[in-house]
Amino acid sequence: MTRSGPSDRNALKRAAAEAAVAEVENGMVLGLGSGSSAAFAIAALAARVAAGLRIVGIPTSERSAVLARQLGVPLASFADHRRIDVTIDGADQVERGTLNLVKGLGGALLREKIVASASDRMIVVVDETKLVDRLGGNTPLPVEVASFGWQTVFDRLAALRCAPRLRLADNKPFMSDGGNYILDCAIAEILDPAKLEARLSAIVGVVENGLFVSMASKIMVGRPTGVEVMER
Amino acid sequence: MTRSGPSDRNALKRAAAEAAVAEVENGMVLGLGSGSSAAFAIAALAARVAAGLRIVGIPTSERSAVLARQLGVPLASFADHRRIDVTIDGADQVERGTLNLVKGLGGALLREKIVASASDRMIVVVDETKLVDRLGGNTPLPVEVASFGWQTVFDRLAALRCAPRLRLADNKPFMSDGGNYILDCAIAEILDPAKLEARLSAIVGVVENGLFVSMASKIMVGRPTGVEVMER
Repeated sequence: MTRSGPSDRNALKRAAAEAAVAEVENGMVLGLGSGSSAAFAIAALAARVAAGLRIVGIPTSERSAVLARQLGVPLASFADHRRIDVTIDGADQVERGTLNLVKGLGGALLREKIVASASDRMIVVVDETKLVDRLGGNTPLPVEVASFGWQTVFDRLAALRCAPRLRLADNKPFMSDGGNYILDCAIAEILDPAKLEARLSAIVGVVENGLFVSMASKIMVGRPTGVEVMER
Repeated sequence: MTRSGPSDRNALKRAAAEAAVAEVENGMVLGLGSGSSAAFAIAALAARVAAGLRIVGIPTSERSAVLARQLGVPLASFADHRRIDVTIDGADQVERGTLNLVKGLGGALLREKIVASASDRMIVVVDETKLVDRLGGNTPLPVEVASFGWQTVFDRLAALRCAPRLRLADNKPFMSDGGNYILDCAIAEILDPAKLEARLSAIVGVVENGLFVSMASKIMVGRPTGVEVMER
């Protein structure tokens, strides 16, 4: 249980983001994550770019692209670079020990996962409230699905006891950057993330899921006492 | 090697399609495939509907939807029906014995596979030229991928020795009904389709692939000597 409010949490995220950006070196191709922690990382990166750092960033969402442009962070795409040196992104949950993640509450999980999977290293920036002993519980697992026939995937997820719910926005199905729908799955405890991920991937109509297994190489955890570094 | 020309092959497809449609019963929910053989099936179905058959069809492409509407076949969607009794569709390759398929040269593989996977039975309509002893060879395996970062999937497929090629239309990337790109993979022999499918599904950015493993329950093969029925 934490007593910190939103502004305290932002201070923790910012400190963690700055620690992540401190690892960036000249000439790197970076993956730019999405969400509030990633925004702090883009801002910290912009400060270093203004001070002379030469990097390019591949953004994982339109929002991050807009922010990077506004702050003067040079952008690139996979047409220019097939491999990424380091991706800096947030997470909705980080499992202690394994550093496995749940991501996608922001709706950018497909691009985030494509960028992370093309990266040599992934540094994750979170405040301490995102650390869990076990993935699942109060945080739903987002599953991105083709809009055509999403109902058939819904039924299969329900059969796997994943308790899916179609994500809505303005009373209509939320649409991802990729034009897909999101089913948010309530799972009490994700005991074997790799196995669950393989099962989800095998369902016809599933485009991607929010489990990031063995992808994060380092976690920067913002705590009131300072930034804690977790490594695999 | 066959000596039959296109018009002969159409006659074989039509005969096979009619044999498939003969299995349709009153009250069924049908999956309507895409491509030339499926079009013959929709036409044969329309003749039975005109004669009083009561069915509804869930189409796997805009083209099939248009054809069905023109011919008076009542349409439905997954919003109305979560399960399908029988899907009738074509295939690019049918493996003798296993009845495993390669589909997707027409670009509708995602919807075709969603419909097939929601079906109790799948009847496949082909002319005899589609039968092979082993999937692969001259027929590429289509892999549908997110347009964002398709290059990263390309590199992974190349590492799997799948020899991918980005499908083009009018000198631009071909776009599927789902808004994705297609990578056509040249594979000399697909020795273990289920294993390959699991590997492809696990690649981040792969939306679906053209392998239909253990999905077809019956194949109607149009031959000059008549329609041969293959069952699992």
